[in-house]
Amino acid sequence: MSEIRVLSPATVANVVCGFDCLGFALSAPCDEMIVRIIERKIVRIVNRDDFNLPTKPEKNVAGAALLSMLRAIDADFGFEVEITKHIKPGSGIGSSSASAAGAVVAANKLLNERFSRLELVEFAMDGEKVASGDRHADNVAPCIFGGFTLVRSLNPLDVVTLDFPPLFVTIIHPQIEIKTSEARKMLPAQVSLKDAIRQWSNVGALVSGLQKGDYELISRALEDFIVEPVRKILIPKFDEIKNESLKGGALGGGISGSGPSIFMLSETLETAQKIEKVMREIYEQTTIDFNIYVSEINSEGVKFVN
Amino acid sequence: MSEIRVLSPATVANVVCGFDCLGFALSAPCDEMIVRIIERKIVRIVNRDDFNLPTKPEKNVAGAALLSMLRAIDADFGFEVEITKHIKPGSGIGSSSASAAGAVVAANKLLNERFSRLELVEFAMDGEKVASGDRHADNVAPCIFGGFTLVRSLNPLDVVTLDFPPLFVTIIHPQIEIKTSEARKMLPAQVSLKDAIRQWSNVGALVSGLQKGDYELISRALEDFIVEPVRKILIPKFDEIKNESLKGGALGGGISGSGPSIFMLSETLETAQKIEKVMREIYEQTTIDFNIYVSEINSEGVKFVN
Repeated sequence: MSEIRVLSPATVANVVCGFDCLGFALSAPCDEMIVRIIERKIVRIVNRDDFNLPTKPEKNVAGAALLSMLRAIDADFGFEVEITKHIKPGSGIGSSSASAAGAVVAANKLLNERFSRLELVEFAMDGEKVASGDRHADNVAPCIFGGFTLVRSLNPLDVVTLDFPPLFVTIIHPQIEIKTSEARKMLPAQVSLKDAIRQWSNVGALVSGLQKGDYELISRALEDFIVEPVRKILIPKFDEIKNESLKGGALGGGISGSGPSIFMLSETLETAQKIEKVMREIYEQTTIDFNIYVSEINSEGVKFVN
Repeated sequence: MSEIRVLSPATVANVVCGFDCLGFALSAPCDEMIVRIIERKIVRIVNRDDFNLPTKPEKNVAGAALLSMLRAIDADFGFEVEITKHIKPGSGIGSSSASAAGAVVAANKLLNERFSRLELVEFAMDGEKVASGDRHADNVAPCIFGGFTLVRSLNPLDVVTLDFPPLFVTIIHPQIEIKTSEARKMLPAQVSLKDAIRQWSNVGALVSGLQKGDYELISRALEDFIVEPVRKILIPKFDEIKNESLKGGALGGGISGSGPSIFMLSETLETAQKIEKVMREIYEQTTIDFNIYVSEINSEGVKFVN
């Protein structure tokens, strides 16, 4: 086993009411990564795309995650990682997390599955920190565990995997830049207890709806009274996309991560494809470039390929 | 079918992190109620206990709930209800809700199940309003549906029933008075977004733990950073009861409703009985009278008896 190839998927964090805890993995787009053990005690980054991401390992999310893993085992070897990114940085669908998570999952395979998935999330968070300035697991957890995850706590790290019924996602990525730091500044420091209660009632209901496969309950619970109202103004046509998607049969949705992508969940692939058309028609009226992805929820997470 | 007898159970609302949405029903204590259709278009209250509760129907929670039901069907008859309360008013384990819920469930049986359980919750909330000043469903929902319920929304009313594994409850009712209005004044109007996120992460994890039957997850998720810290000071020995119960093997717990009762959940009856001893020893050091109940979670709610 000289090298391991993986496909590391895009992910959606901040799932509506589940701000800062709920996320899920997509089937596409994915980054392609190859990891090899090398003799030198370094991490070597080989970028096979045009994003001009850092090649210094401590400045690269995949590199920083692998360095964290190597430190943990006091290794006398290193890793080389070849990265072909298909998830655009800054899209709000977990581009940096895919690199960090894919790298550690592949490396762990080379180490004969020495680490648990929870430990891999810890390493990947060290990579994520390079991109976003702090350790968070909202995207790396679903990327590594697959499916829907709830990060109950960061310290100690507690990741809960949720059952869920078949669900399809339509995501539009308008090619505008929203800096995570800017999106963070918009968050209120305080919220009313009343709104907080509405939010946690919806989180509980959403988890129950997912576990029971109750699509109507999922739809009713996909409400966010706290973050969406302040952040949506950064995203052109947000309300129109959301309202028309709901009219088109989507269950609900909102801002992916801290934006600018908008995601909508549907019960069937057919509806998700219909929502793709809805989104396309709305954004074609603007001058903004965009990509749209239709994907099933990916229950596997990072995938090994031969 | 000239009369219907029911046992209407005590309930726990504000289940730790699930403040204002999560509740569950107990197997004991229960109020005993008999409802009969009478010719006169009135509601007649017959109290068979020593609590001196109001007999004017519009001032009595069972009476107000039945009046609401009669108005909904524009009835040309009335109801008589005999009430033998065993759940002490002011105990924080849903005494008023038991009366309101028991009355409408029994009356609905006399009306050949004309109303859905959700509609019964609406009527019972009109009764609850007499006792607490506003319409809330935190106790009447689990009383009517049984088991664990999550009230996602009051308007429109949305009650979610949750799956749960076998769970046993130990409740101590210290006989001190905590006015709901006083307990409410202690609530903060605003909470930090950080604490709110911790709370809703725990709510999601708790619902998942209940549905999966994952006792360790249930235990980890039973945390409340918002309400318990400010309200527990009204309840003597709260911290000692909680800490010693956890040491004794309880999964977790907190303030029942707005107090003064304290509940702890356990995985087995044996542990719940051990926690009873723990609680008893602590309160025997005080001069406060108390009752302790050990009960399974009641998945049935209001129960018909012959």
